[in-house]
Amino acid sequence: MLRGGVSRRTAGRQTVPVVLGFRAAGLHCGIKKAGEPDLALVASDAPCAAAGVFTRSTVVGAPVELSRQRVASGRARAVVVNSGISNVAMGARGRRDAAAMTRLASRALGCPDSDVLVASTGVIGEPLPMAKLRAGIPAAVDALSEAGLPDAARAIMTTDTHPKLAWRRVRIGDASVRVAGIAKGVGMSEPNMATVLAFVFSDAAATPGFVRRVLRAAAGETLNRITVDGETSTSDTALLFANGRAGNRVLRGPSSAGAGAFAGAVAGVCEELARMLARDGEGASKLVTVKVTGARNAQEAERAARRIANSMLVKTALFGRDPNWGRILQTVGAGRVALDLARTRVRLGGVTVFKAGASAGPAARRRAETKLAADEVEIEVHLGAGRAADRIWTCDLTYDYVRINAEYTT
Amino acid sequence: MLRGGVSRRTAGRQTVPVVLGFRAAGLHCGIKKAGEPDLALVASDAPCAAAGVFTRSTVVGAPVELSRQRVASGRARAVVVNSGISNVAMGARGRRDAAAMTRLASRALGCPDSDVLVASTGVIGEPLPMAKLRAGIPAAVDALSEAGLPDAARAIMTTDTHPKLAWRRVRIGDASVRVAGIAKGVGMSEPNMATVLAFVFSDAAATPGFVRRVLRAAAGETLNRITVDGETSTSDTALLFANGRAGNRVLRGPSSAGAGAFAGAVAGVCEELARMLARDGEGASKLVTVKVTGARNAQEAERAARRIANSMLVKTALFGRDPNWGRILQTVGAGRVALDLARTRVRLGGVTVFKAGASAGPAARRRAETKLAADEVEIEVHLGAGRAADRIWTCDLTYDYVRINAEYTT
Repeated sequence: MLRGGVSRRTAGRQTVPVVLGFRAAGLHCGIKKAGEPDLALVASDAPCAAAGVFTRSTVVGAPVELSRQRVASGRARAVVVNSGISNVAMGARGRRDAAAMTRLASRALGCPDSDVLVASTGVIGEPLPMAKLRAGIPAAVDALSEAGLPDAARAIMTTDTHPKLAWRRVRIGDASVRVAGIAKGVGMSEPNMATVLAFVFSDAAATPGFVRRVLRAAAGETLNRITVDGETSTSDTALLFANGRAGNRVLRGPSSAGAGAFAGAVAGVCEELARMLARDGEGASKLVTVKVTGARNAQEAERAARRIANSMLVKTALFGRDPNWGRILQTVGAGRVALDLARTRVRLGGVTVFKAGASAGPAARRRAETKLAADEVEIEVHLGAGRAADRIWTCDLTYDYVRINAEYTT
Repeated sequence: MLRGGVSRRTAGRQTVPVVLGFRAAGLHCGIKKAGEPDLALVASDAPCAAAGVFTRSTVVGAPVELSRQRVASGRARAVVVNSGISNVAMGARGRRDAAAMTRLASRALGCPDSDVLVASTGVIGEPLPMAKLRAGIPAAVDALSEAGLPDAARAIMTTDTHPKLAWRRVRIGDASVRVAGIAKGVGMSEPNMATVLAFVFSDAAATPGFVRRVLRAAAGETLNRITVDGETSTSDTALLFANGRAGNRVLRGPSSAGAGAFAGAVAGVCEELARMLARDGEGASKLVTVKVTGARNAQEAERAARRIANSMLVKTALFGRDPNWGRILQTVGAGRVALDLARTRVRLGGVTVFKAGASAGPAARRRAETKLAADEVEIEVHLGAGRAADRIWTCDLTYDYVRINAEYTT
């Protein structure tokens, strides 16, 4: 698998992936006050096999309702996204506005309205400024460009400190297939809404059923395995589009030639985006990978990993560079996860700090402290209770998280 | 029900409840470095009906194992508690040390060893300094005093900023019955361990079965309804002792005369302690009561209340005095709790900020902001999905929480 794929430079700023047949744009239409880009559009010049995964929250925004319903057909061609206001908890007006956004895009693109998906991210409970979107969406269609993906990545940001792009190129038979994705931010909710949005585009030829399968598997292992504060946004959306322009033999299922390469490329893009999202969590000073092994079953492995990743005590300890295995074991126990303390092992940054039922001692502690100063840290916990494993990405809990989420002017 | 009960002053410092037949002490035996009290003992001069509720964590300290086993008999007479080191994750040595603590107390008290319960709170994974306890426990027995409960309350503290005592007096027939309790701190785990310990003493005459029933009900509604950071300590312990010295007719069950008054007094003491614990959560600037109504069932009511109470986003918003109903509904939805947005209502400090599917507007927002400045705040959420309700006490998430848990010298 090659990284970088077909790419070129825009304005000397960033390497840009080009996926055949896709064009993108990002611009400021007036939702955000300070002139930052707040409207993104990505469109394919041909119909795509498409799939989506969405928030499992019982409170969802109108854009999620509409996109979930449309993408169930397995077909789509474009996605229009605004940032700044999330269009959540707005009742009938929210539904009208979401539909109006896709209609503005489909008219300007000249495609069926049902082929356009939509997402919104930002403040909950405020109405979208539709007059601005009525001007902005046609302008975004005019601005579409093969090199526009970085602009789109920037236009979907909320509290993200930088745009997130990832891409891969793989061979499928004689064809070169590209997969490129953009994503935005972690942390949650109004007013510093940080819904996870991830949009992945490929020129692979694949059936809608296989596209759905590939996206679900990739999201399950990557986008669904990041956490900043244990919250799930009302607007989380991940979409995968495949327009077939690469000319490969159509991927119909896991036994199709090249299916594994394509699935691997999509998972690779999603993993790279997921790690960027966790590292850029609100106020985060480091990326933390939590690996749990030796759990009694998959559910307990996941629960242990999520408890550790979401524990305020573990996260503040990581910020404080404190190799605090006591907090790690405590939160696993609090999650009622089976473990055998005598066989439990905790490694921090590769240093064993707890084993055989006891601390590994002050020298190990000091070595681990040094490792915790890095901007990327691994927590490995072996529970000694079975064979199941899981992995979650997260970040530490810092003063800046509190500042971002407590101190702002309403 | 009277508050204050039989009491007198010690050293002009604090009103002290006296429960007939109970004596208490708290002193420094050398576990904590700065000379603060770190050893508490409370003993009855007669055998007691006794009951305990303990952490449900799968990682528990040796003192929890021992006390859980002993109190199952329904009989006990004393409890010995150290703070500073929790005696967790110490294997066979931890079990030996916990048993040695009770044996030191039982010998000096002259009672069966099985009548002594034990608890420890503090750093996980360090050994208890048994030489200090061998001198300290007999000294604590010598120091036992009817007015010693405030000293005991102080000696069980870890990151608590003040000792916590509560008491009640009730009439049962001709008898005056006293109930007094002490408790310590919230937040969790090593090194700023903040296990919840609560010990309640009464001179009521009651059967072990009824004492168990009263404690379980009281703890379920109060001590099990507080949260600072969603963690459960390895050492959480609540004990209720009743020695019969008040001379009331023995309470055998809920239909005994005076049973309701006694249960109410115990619940009242536990609730007062629980509220003190939540208000004194690590770094907390305010006590927050979360009330959920209109849930589909009791499980969802509790889940919604706990999600709100543990949400880092809600807690930082409370610290920032931000009437952020979006974060509240978001975390309820993320918990997959059923709600009908059109019938959902959110009140903050008594001000309705969300109803009929929409914000109650900027004027309500401003009024709620003012209310959120108080040091005690109520969040009321009606879900519009059923009739179940629940209530949880918590506190806000502040810079000080991060400081306490991230910045210390190991």
